[in-house]
Amino acid sequence: MASKHKVMGICGTYTLKSANGRMLEIVGEKLESHGIDWVVWNNEETPLPFVGEDGCWDHPNVKKYKNIADSVDAFVLSSPEYHGTMSGVMKNSLDWLSFNQTSGKIFGFISTLGGQSNTTTLNHMRTVARWIHGFSIPEQIAIPKVKNAFDEDGNIIDEELSSRLDKFVDSIVNSVQKLR
Amino acid sequence: MASKHKVMGICGTYTLKSANGRMLEIVGEKLESHGIDWVVWNNEETPLPFVGEDGCWDHPNVKKYKNIADSVDAFVLSSPEYHGTMSGVMKNSLDWLSFNQTSGKIFGFISTLGGQSNTTTLNHMRTVARWIHGFSIPEQIAIPKVKNAFDEDGNIIDEELSSRLDKFVDSIVNSVQKLR
Amino acid sequence: MASKHKVMGICGTYTLKSANGRMLEIVGEKLESHGIDWVVWNNEETPLPFVGEDGCWDHPNVKKYKNIADSVDAFVLSSPEYHGTMSGVMKNSLDWLSFNQTSGKIFGFISTLGGQSNTTTLNHMRTVARWIHGFSIPEQIAIPKVKNAFDEDGNIIDEELSSRLDKFVDSIVNSVQKLR
Amino acid sequence: MASKHKVMGICGTYTLKSANGRMLEIVGEKLESHGIDWVVWNNEETPLPFVGEDGCWDHPNVKKYKNIADSVDAFVLSSPEYHGTMSGVMKNSLDWLSFNQTSGKIFGFISTLGGQSNTTTLNHMRTVARWIHGFSIPEQIAIPKVKNAFDEDGNIIDEELSSRLDKFVDSIVNSVQKLR
Repeated sequence: MASKHKVMGICGTYTLKSANGRMLEIVGEKLESHGIDWVVWNNEETPLPFVGEDGCWDHPNVKKYKNIADSVDAFVLSSPEYHGTMSGVMKNSLDWLSFNQTSGKIFGFISTLGGQSNTTTLNHMRTVARWIHGFSIPEQIAIPKVKNAFDEDGNIIDEELSSRLDKFVDSIVNSVQKLR
Repeated sequence: MASKHKVMGICGTYTLKSANGRMLEIVGEKLESHGIDWVVWNNEETPLPFVGEDGCWDHPNVKKYKNIADSVDAFVLSSPEYHGTMSGVMKNSLDWLSFNQTSGKIFGFISTLGGQSNTTTLNHMRTVARWIHGFSIPEQIAIPKVKNAFDEDGNIIDEELSSRLDKFVDSIVNSVQKLR
Repeated sequence: MASKHKVMGICGTYTLKSANGRMLEIVGEKLESHGIDWVVWNNEETPLPFVGEDGCWDHPNVKKYKNIADSVDAFVLSSPEYHGTMSGVMKNSLDWLSFNQTSGKIFGFISTLGGQSNTTTLNHMRTVARWIHGFSIPEQIAIPKVKNAFDEDGNIIDEELSSRLDKFVDSIVNSVQKLR
Repeated sequence: MASKHKVMGICGTYTLKSANGRMLEIVGEKLESHGIDWVVWNNEETPLPFVGEDGCWDHPNVKKYKNIADSVDAFVLSSPEYHGTMSGVMKNSLDWLSFNQTSGKIFGFISTLGGQSNTTTLNHMRTVARWIHGFSIPEQIAIPKVKNAFDEDGNIIDEELSSRLDKFVDSIVNSVQKLR
């Protein structure tokens, strides 16, 4: 019997107690309900150093991070848009990945915005995913006015967005099953 | 008499002992020869925290960084291309800037590449600069095969590239004088 | 006395009887109220051929188009977003320009969208303007849900958008005066 | 038995007697050797009108073009880079496609350049493909200094590029088989 598929979430805010962390939590629950294993990197508990920082090359968290990335079939990236593109936290996390961990694997993208909708962060994350030979699904999620996007229980208020999220997860599941 | 103009260099590699640091050094010398003050942020000596990291909001280095940014007329960003866009170090440095420090100021961009030339990193840094209301000069520098780009004394070998760099600096000087 | 400054509008919809044409009309009126001459290219009256089409290289409309472009100090590009970037009509119009017509001139950008706001079309037009050595102002206009953006008299309904447009025009005027 | 898969080439130069046309010819031959049907749109023989041009909506060539697009499993786009992005000819061709013709289909991208290598045209075509819900393969081809890229018989001189092209075609074949 084939081993279970596994997906890794990477968050563009430092803490997972954020809209981006919450989005990954929701995606993870949905993926698990499809029988897919889920793991999220937590920069607060196990910080990744900056690339080039003293001691970075042998940092135990980097090894742990790469080992998890090695083991998964797909990645879901969830980043706030800061100044028109992904956060430095997200980009530094991606800088620690290479072809070895990502080639031929599936990528899905989520972006949260303080104001109006925009896709530049999503486009730039796609550029990165392609560079490391990932296979990006067409579906993507942009969440405008993110401060008003969730209800008290942390559920997405907008029904159209919620429906988009279901299709997003279905596309990851479908792509992982067909391509991995 | 008008006070002297001042330009700040921001480096996308953690250490300034790098091709990107060297490029900023060369640009700085040229700007100083035009009577412009020059300052480079040094992440190794005064590290910026990640945005969102514990203690980041009151970090003394962030205050120091913002104070310098407040005081300048222009910025030169020099980043390696990692996975098709600027490094996490560069993006995190840019995440610490806001309209207050950058609105209406001049931006110039340099990108180094391990292999063939490319402009995606430059394009993405332009997107960021616009977001924070900067005025980006059309001239830009991409340095392909960066490991072979400098001679033993740290000078740029390629004459066309060297000539482009002169025009790049002239454009910064000219734009600062006309727009600031 | 210095001759008057002149700005050229280029429209990404084939007809000027469109939201993008209307935006150019509004911008033109505002520029003229600042004492700046204004001219819009009209593809319906004087069609530009596709680059590479039989007879295109000596086409009289191309010559006329280039002559106008030669004579102006700035360009305002107004394009619908089709499939996430500028229209083919806009890109073909830009393909007919070169450094000779555009180097060192000012560029401003407007994008209209059927649905939610987005800046990809604006970003891509900026990439083109830089390639032909234009100087792009930081201000830009994206008009979401464009079908509901104008009242019966063709005026912009949203006051914030209207105020942004004033700043956009002011920035063109200011940049033309300082850089040309 | 399953019907044969089919791929459509779209060219960013008006004539197919061009480097971009030649690239499509090579790709087509390779795909056919894998038992895949191949068709190239020829703008010289069957010109597509500009979107919005008088008579465009019922133009017989548009119908023919859409019918072919309807019938295929994948698209290969080959465009020159004009001013840092795809040509107007390419963009207008893409403007005539919609979700109906492209959703869930495979896309591959080729870009030719007069000078140094660059990926902006490829990135922008990827943005379009995603907008119309296409599935873009990670492999892509950029051909710098295109005037010197082919020998007298129209074969690619650079062996590394030639090897990349084989992987590009293999990836299309593989993706079509798994996802269609």
